[in-house]
Amino acid sequence: MSSEQKATNITWHEGNITRMDRERLNGHRGAVVWFTGLSGSGKSTIARALEEALFERGIRAYVLDGDNIRHGLNKNLGFSPEDRQENIRRIGEVAKLFADAGLIAITAFISPYRADRDQARAINGEDFIEVYVDCALDVCESRDPKGLYQKARAGLIPEFTGISAPYEPPLNPELVIDSAALSVDESVRSVISLLESRGIIPARS
Amino acid sequence: MSSEQKATNITWHEGNITRMDRERLNGHRGAVVWFTGLSGSGKSTIARALEEALFERGIRAYVLDGDNIRHGLNKNLGFSPEDRQENIRRIGEVAKLFADAGLIAITAFISPYRADRDQARAINGEDFIEVYVDCALDVCESRDPKGLYQKARAGLIPEFTGISAPYEPPLNPELVIDSAALSVDESVRSVISLLESRGIIPARS
Repeated sequence: MSSEQKATNITWHEGNITRMDRERLNGHRGAVVWFTGLSGSGKSTIARALEEALFERGIRAYVLDGDNIRHGLNKNLGFSPEDRQENIRRIGEVAKLFADAGLIAITAFISPYRADRDQARAINGEDFIEVYVDCALDVCESRDPKGLYQKARAGLIPEFTGISAPYEPPLNPELVIDSAALSVDESVRSVISLLESRGIIPARS
Repeated sequence: MSSEQKATNITWHEGNITRMDRERLNGHRGAVVWFTGLSGSGKSTIARALEEALFERGIRAYVLDGDNIRHGLNKNLGFSPEDRQENIRRIGEVAKLFADAGLIAITAFISPYRADRDQARAINGEDFIEVYVDCALDVCESRDPKGLYQKARAGLIPEFTGISAPYEPPLNPELVIDSAALSVDESVRSVISLLESRGIIPARS
């Protein structure tokens, strides 16, 4: 499926209520926190804990991950290179809608290809915060929370990232989290510090 | 914060923060208000005015319409029957994510086919509120805000709903708005009354 613009005659139109209005109502800015890393690196765990920490501060955030996306919006996509690319493209576009709605979209997908993440970044411009959850393959494999590495090693999952398909680490992520060294709480705090320093959420007094 | 893995591969998973938590924070429920009707019937105008009226009450709502969807998420879809169906399916799925995030998703698409709207309804269950903006073709054509009817009559737009492609009115919509008889404000009030009566938003004291 190509990402070429097919429909013409269309302009992005701001309604009566703008993004700035919504951000004023919420007391924080919209943004996209894009986690990337190997399966088992801790992306989803950190993403959910981040959502909870933000919620406790009254901040509107929402996690997009494999469970709610692969089940619904992207259920008609598989794991071919084209489908992986389209998967990430759609997630980037949905995250943009959430940011425009004044929320902090938190995405937790392996998103192994640099080009796909760069497309999501291009879609979202300065709203895009790439967080690389850096974790050695052997550590991820020893965690293996879903037993996927075991299946991949047994040849039951073709093109599994880290085993039989590449993972391309970000070259210039906004943040790197070493999930073998940091606790979940420490990881969340590092993201929150970044959001505060960028003025996306208010600093805690 | 537990680092326990809650998700299996194939279940929609609630994180630590649930939809109910988000709805409590917002002071209203998530929902999907799905406008359907001919081009020129007033869907977008009513949708934007509804968003504004809800915003003034501190309610989080967000309009999905051709301008922000055809430009982004669905830019790789055209107007073939398959693409129209996929267009509506994706919108139904994104609306579901917004409702799960605790917002009122307002969609403004012609969505001419009953089967496609029924699929969006099936995706969204009891959150789905179908609003038929009922307006006679000749009235819509006389408004022709984007000059599309004129182009369609001249044969410049193939398969234009109402002219050369069918519109299938809802059989059991939650609400019908006669946009030739009601003002925009009256139309908005009728939707708000419905949202109040269903307990989606608090009634104004």
